[in-house]
Amino acid sequence: VSPGKPVVAIVGTGLIGASLALAFKKSGFCGNVPGYSRRKETLEQAVAAGAVDTELEKPQDAVDADIVMLAAPVGAIISHLRVLGSSGCASRLIMDVGSVKAPILKAAVEAGLGRRFVGGHPMAGSIEHGPAHASSDLFKDRTFFLTPTEETSKEALQTVKELVKAVGAKIVEIDADEHDRTVALTSHLPYLLSAALSQLASGQSGSLTHVREAVAGAFRSATHLADGSPEMWADIISGNAGNVEEWLKRLRELAGNLLQAGGNPDRLQSILASIRDTHNGLLERLS
Amino acid sequence: VSPGKPVVAIVGTGLIGASLALAFKKSGFCGNVPGYSRRKETLEQAVAAGAVDTELEKPQDAVDADIVMLAAPVGAIISHLRVLGSSGCASRLIMDVGSVKAPILKAAVEAGLGRRFVGGHPMAGSIEHGPAHASSDLFKDRTFFLTPTEETSKEALQTVKELVKAVGAKIVEIDADEHDRTVALTSHLPYLLSAALSQLASGQSGSLTHVREAVAGAFRSATHLADGSPEMWADIISGNAGNVEEWLKRLRELAGNLLQAGGNPDRLQSILASIRDTHNGLLERLS
Repeated sequence: VSPGKPVVAIVGTGLIGASLALAFKKSGFCGNVPGYSRRKETLEQAVAAGAVDTELEKPQDAVDADIVMLAAPVGAIISHLRVLGSSGCASRLIMDVGSVKAPILKAAVEAGLGRRFVGGHPMAGSIEHGPAHASSDLFKDRTFFLTPTEETSKEALQTVKELVKAVGAKIVEIDADEHDRTVALTSHLPYLLSAALSQLASGQSGSLTHVREAVAGAFRSATHLADGSPEMWADIISGNAGNVEEWLKRLRELAGNLLQAGGNPDRLQSILASIRDTHNGLLERLS
Repeated sequence: VSPGKPVVAIVGTGLIGASLALAFKKSGFCGNVPGYSRRKETLEQAVAAGAVDTELEKPQDAVDADIVMLAAPVGAIISHLRVLGSSGCASRLIMDVGSVKAPILKAAVEAGLGRRFVGGHPMAGSIEHGPAHASSDLFKDRTFFLTPTEETSKEALQTVKELVKAVGAKIVEIDADEHDRTVALTSHLPYLLSAALSQLASGQSGSLTHVREAVAGAFRSATHLADGSPEMWADIISGNAGNVEEWLKRLRELAGNLLQAGGNPDRLQSILASIRDTHNGLLERLS
């Protein structure tokens, strides 16, 4: 135990939870890191990776930590919040890093944790998961969305900002609903399209003989996200279905418009060229 | 000029055309390679890459070659076929490597070249283009679809099979309509979704403040194909719009079903897990 440094309990020690712990340690932000995972193996891997110091047996064992970091799938975060709220949690900051924020903020407030709660969402990690892939650099220069509740105290917000700076990420404060609408577009719809495209192609083996031979680089890159964790994505899609449905409708319209523009290949070419240029601009920050 | 070896003229000396020439040379399949490109720079790069030996000034200068390989965008292939048909082309095999086959076969037959024509489509290359990226190994172990016309002679078909074997690809003979339906699913729809998703996200900068900050790995991989050549893709989407529209409808249904299944996260998780497993099976051949 390092005197003066907060104890940060990590509840959910997968890629994100374990990477946060490593980044806290590297920056000197925290002292001891107790950790909990529903899967014993995940917790042991997080200990082996040097992310977690003490194994907790159940989520409510985290109630004495200065900071509780909930890094489980969205559904588990919500049930952890209920447990913490009814277990006399004494922590000065409770936060999460789930990909959908509105239902989590609602659960935090309902659990009576609203003043000490801040929602978070680092834009890092996609396909690889598990603490074996954890890295203290995972959040470096990445966006880290923060969604306070209406009740969040200045103190809790101050602590969470120090925490995000410690992992090298860029803080973007955002309303929870706007967050959910935005990542529905940039992350959840892309996953849904990948999964649906993979499902569509796999389902054609009866009617089309050569689907397998026609699968190449284009298909591979467009369906890459379908390899992501079903557990994580099921919770995300469930928790953000309304927003994703809205974007799906808009996408279908745009795709239909592009097909129609194909009646004039020169016109379509100039539209596609403009999409490509804007696309490169949008991704510039990432390169 | 190597006696006894066919002269193969490459009309369109981009990535695919130049890579074919390099593969023919490496395998000893062909003698001299004359080449034509609409863009002077592309032709010069193909010469510099060692793919093309002789620069042709116009497509009809290819009429004396033993084999004419049309490796331009789909629209250009169709106009080259018309030119060859009306220029007394003496070649014993005329083939193409465009991504849509039915309209090209139709043009070949209409140009009076049906007996000597075979359509081809190697499943290789996606984002990078231009002869500077050409490689003699590009087609190794890849599918090379062949679509003869109803009139194609045994001799032409025999020659095209030797040619495909020389580049190390796997021959898959397929009906042109079935080909177009199949690659609409595995390649053209994936491109359309990537382009439309990129367009959708770029278009939200007015209503959503933090789209740019929310763009990360998931978005990048789902929109990777939007970086492809607008000229090539405009012709493909134009030439295969009907098939792509059919698959787009089906995809939208499947995506909607997944969103609905989100009402029960456990059920959705098991569907997504099954999609992931089948997906890995579908891609196995590629790894």
